[in-house]
Amino acid sequence: MGIVLGRNQYGKAECRVVRVVRDEARHELRDVNVSTCLWGDFDAAHTDGDQTRVLPTDTQKNTCYAYAKEHGIDEIEDYALALGRHFVEDVDSVAGARVEVEEYAWDRIVVGGREHDHSWARRGGEVRTAAVTVIGDAEWVVSGLSDLVVVKSTGSEFAGFLRDRYTTLAETHDRVLATSLTARWRWDGAGADWGAAHADVRQTLVERFADVHSLALQQTLWEMGRAVLETHDGIAEIRLSAPNKHHFVVDLAPFGLDNPGEVFHADDRPYGLIQASATRDDASDPGPAWETSEAFA
Amino acid sequence: MGIVLGRNQYGKAECRVVRVVRDEARHELRDVNVSTCLWGDFDAAHTDGDQTRVLPTDTQKNTCYAYAKEHGIDEIEDYALALGRHFVEDVDSVAGARVEVEEYAWDRIVVGGREHDHSWARRGGEVRTAAVTVIGDAEWVVSGLSDLVVVKSTGSEFAGFLRDRYTTLAETHDRVLATSLTARWRWDGAGADWGAAHADVRQTLVERFADVHSLALQQTLWEMGRAVLETHDGIAEIRLSAPNKHHFVVDLAPFGLDNPGEVFHADDRPYGLIQASATRDDASDPGPAWETSEAFA
Amino acid sequence: MGIVLGRNQYGKAECRVVRVVRDEARHELRDVNVSTCLWGDFDAAHTDGDQTRVLPTDTQKNTCYAYAKEHGIDEIEDYALALGRHFVEDVDSVAGARVEVEEYAWDRIVVGGREHDHSWARRGGEVRTAAVTVIGDAEWVVSGLSDLVVVKSTGSEFAGFLRDRYTTLAETHDRVLATSLTARWRWDGAGADWGAAHADVRQTLVERFADVHSLALQQTLWEMGRAVLETHDGIAEIRLSAPNKHHFVVDLAPFGLDNPGEVFHADDRPYGLIQASATRDDASDPGPAWETSEAFA
Amino acid sequence: MGIVLGRNQYGKAECRVVRVVRDEARHELRDVNVSTCLWGDFDAAHTDGDQTRVLPTDTQKNTCYAYAKEHGIDEIEDYALALGRHFVEDVDSVAGARVEVEEYAWDRIVVGGREHDHSWARRGGEVRTAAVTVIGDAEWVVSGLSDLVVVKSTGSEFAGFLRDRYTTLAETHDRVLATSLTARWRWDGAGADWGAAHADVRQTLVERFADVHSLALQQTLWEMGRAVLETHDGIAEIRLSAPNKHHFVVDLAPFGLDNPGEVFHADDRPYGLIQASATRDDASDPGPAWETSEAFA
Repeated sequence: MGIVLGRNQYGKAECRVVRVVRDEARHELRDVNVSTCLWGDFDAAHTDGDQTRVLPTDTQKNTCYAYAKEHGIDEIEDYALALGRHFVEDVDSVAGARVEVEEYAWDRIVVGGREHDHSWARRGGEVRTAAVTVIGDAEWVVSGLSDLVVVKSTGSEFAGFLRDRYTTLAETHDRVLATSLTARWRWDGAGADWGAAHADVRQTLVERFADVHSLALQQTLWEMGRAVLETHDGIAEIRLSAPNKHHFVVDLAPFGLDNPGEVFHADDRPYGLIQASATRDDASDPGPAWETSEAFA
Repeated sequence: MGIVLGRNQYGKAECRVVRVVRDEARHELRDVNVSTCLWGDFDAAHTDGDQTRVLPTDTQKNTCYAYAKEHGIDEIEDYALALGRHFVEDVDSVAGARVEVEEYAWDRIVVGGREHDHSWARRGGEVRTAAVTVIGDAEWVVSGLSDLVVVKSTGSEFAGFLRDRYTTLAETHDRVLATSLTARWRWDGAGADWGAAHADVRQTLVERFADVHSLALQQTLWEMGRAVLETHDGIAEIRLSAPNKHHFVVDLAPFGLDNPGEVFHADDRPYGLIQASATRDDASDPGPAWETSEAFA
Repeated sequence: MGIVLGRNQYGKAECRVVRVVRDEARHELRDVNVSTCLWGDFDAAHTDGDQTRVLPTDTQKNTCYAYAKEHGIDEIEDYALALGRHFVEDVDSVAGARVEVEEYAWDRIVVGGREHDHSWARRGGEVRTAAVTVIGDAEWVVSGLSDLVVVKSTGSEFAGFLRDRYTTLAETHDRVLATSLTARWRWDGAGADWGAAHADVRQTLVERFADVHSLALQQTLWEMGRAVLETHDGIAEIRLSAPNKHHFVVDLAPFGLDNPGEVFHADDRPYGLIQASATRDDASDPGPAWETSEAFA
Repeated sequence: MGIVLGRNQYGKAECRVVRVVRDEARHELRDVNVSTCLWGDFDAAHTDGDQTRVLPTDTQKNTCYAYAKEHGIDEIEDYALALGRHFVEDVDSVAGARVEVEEYAWDRIVVGGREHDHSWARRGGEVRTAAVTVIGDAEWVVSGLSDLVVVKSTGSEFAGFLRDRYTTLAETHDRVLATSLTARWRWDGAGADWGAAHADVRQTLVERFADVHSLALQQTLWEMGRAVLETHDGIAEIRLSAPNKHHFVVDLAPFGLDNPGEVFHADDRPYGLIQASATRDDASDPGPAWETSEAFA
């Protein structure tokens, strides 16, 4: 029974690349956080300390900055694909690559009713994401968003649930429902109008959150996911992860006050964590698309 | 030479109060983080453990929630004033109170081109703040904002500075200027249309950031602060705190690429921290207006 | 081509349970953060909003607190196993459960040279972890630690690496090596003296970090992992995730000072992220042991 | 009524300096976070953008690194004093300087029962701090610590407090008391054996926390502060800031379980924030010693 090197991968995490396009008086700005991850023929680096086949993480960082100049950062999916393909095609020892990108949105500052040419305020709110995996000739593109915080002040119930010895929760037919949504959708095949699709998926998600009368966060997630697949043929699967950010009705009776769903305490921990996905009944094998560097250990 | 109790204060920090107004089908939402801080006749609580005169922090918390029902949270300045006055006027042992409020902004979700009645997405970006101090009959109101992240891709220089033995910085006549602004402005006297004023000050700040050709972040801050005082008679002083979020031009020459201000590394630490204020030459004594609980120790 | 519900799971995250054992004058303290995650026959909850088979996350929370009383929290692996088995065995609709626990260490305060009976200071530093997965009769136990920050001021090289067009890194034969280690090791079969094993694995990891002359962080990780498997027959696999926390030698030459590895800037981002594992050549299928809730989407 | 430049200051925040002493086989390590802040004759930088008298923050950063080589970082108070004096004495336009340092502790890794020469694990837990203010010939030294998290499982009461309309809290004669202590003590005059004093003050604080039967956190803080002044003639004043990290007894009665102070929920927010100080009745004016850059706005 021998001890052997198991799965391994390495890369540069969180390169904070900012790209300005200044060919005209009206500049453009892209603000991203890029992480690369490679695997392949790197056994000797581990077992013998032999770096002959190892592309330094410093080089991977340089490549992220250089590609921001050479290829630009128009759509983060395309930028990630260009980087992923480069590592797999141009570096012999690399069998596979994953490139993950977060994009932060900026709004032009408006001065005197007119958008400024070269000044922005950061929008805050949700982050746009892309995760691209390239292995040989195969590619997976997963677009997404995170930190989309939404709330509804009515139109949400939670009742009729299973009760056991440890159940104390009261049923409710009118509660506040709030979450910070992470959504990731996997494309079936190569190209899409990534930016337009992102805006459209985002809108579908928030519309369904608002309009579905929710009997459970599970139901809301399913309706959100289903709606995205129904309106986007190119998306094979969507995964949603949603912390239930509890808003507890405060008991104001001791102070002689009623509280019919008006004053809440927004609690931090613990929180429910509801995760669901919608897929197609003929979906192809998702392969390694959903893996991330953070999940390794 | 005796040892004596020195300055002391206590309160409840970070009550996460959410207030829904649901009198009509179109609900309203206020989402705030409230902290209270009291001082007064509390020596015995320290030296003898005698709590007779101590209003528990739990009671202060309850009061924040109850006032959200009784008084509502229309403008955070008014909500903070109501709480501060209550503690000073209604609790004999309290000589002074400070109430600090952060407000998080939400945008209504738009469904089919129409704003939804009871669903919102959190705006992200900057936080609106208010800090009210009440001592006996005297009151100070400081409105503000924090985490307003702005950037300009040109229109900023830094040159002609003092050089000493430890200076290596190159002069530049075109750089990226970025900061995460904290601004706090002190009102002279009682009332104002807090919300309208806040929106107007915020707009003045970002407009000056965009329009001032900056020779230094110091100059930009001064121009921002001066413009606010020029346009708001009721504001006695404004303080601005601005980390210089460095964007370093990446050297792409080793890769055969030029980089005329197009690709930057957004660095984390260290950062410049520039702090300046604008005031009036006949301003009254600011009193304890600028103190915060965090600064105590 | 139909749209169907895909993979889903739900639970309560981050229950902050503190357990005091006070049967004697000398109390004991356990401080943990518990997260539960269930999957099974929950399709109707998504597609119809039917909660008949859904054990509320609030009940899962209650169970974590009740089990802290009924079963105690002696070893976090046993506490997690008890919770996981309960959900799978006692709740019909549950097919599988994952329970993740973080434990924070406390040191007794020493007064007059003697350990205090009921007062502690939090140790800080690394966190002990356990992740237990139960599916029907099968169980996987993964013990671990995170946030173990280690540094060595010499005994580390990085040279002889692959160079391409984007490589600018200089070779070095003496550098600072620092990381914040996450390690997780999977047990083969059921029982072990979890606490003793944890202390022993932790010691093996830091000893190998210190003693291995490192030609790359990859090599150090491999030597750490191999040593753990060599000394613990019951461990089937160990995974290590190690950010390379870069310490850059500061150029002091402009100030007329040399700097032979004495003054460093500890940088934040980007960082290398090196991940490797050691396993046995006859290891059984790891099953779902390594999955986490965070990795879902 | 004119608008004028008010108070202003600037500096470089969070220089992450690591210093290795490697004169012998057994290396020494110092790991600090340094922030500088200057004020003086800088009006023209604001009003005219004239940088002639402005020492760039980049130069301040360089100085922090260069001084780590030239002066070393033996005691952080001495390192901060050297930097502060340099800025005030050597730069004509500087009237005053504040230098704040945080130090992170590392423990040598023990291999085979013997401390390793050049490998350490970060201790975690509390941070040692120093804040030095220099104005002309005057100097203030404030030593301290932060993030010292302590808990006691009994020996704490809270009863006999003031009740008003909003009070619902039950009295208790046995509760968990936990806090994350920030302590800062101001030295009267120049020199001290900073490191030995720090260890001694830290021990005094935790001993008093453990041994005082607490009728309120206020009382515990006072007893801690008083004990420090009693045992250190050179300390003029000590300030303590202590969040009351609430541990709520969980109601297990619905599950047929009693809970006599055994199972707690450690809550996040809101928290009590108790702040108190001990001083001498003939203490000199504390001057600007307690100010920090964060408190400016």
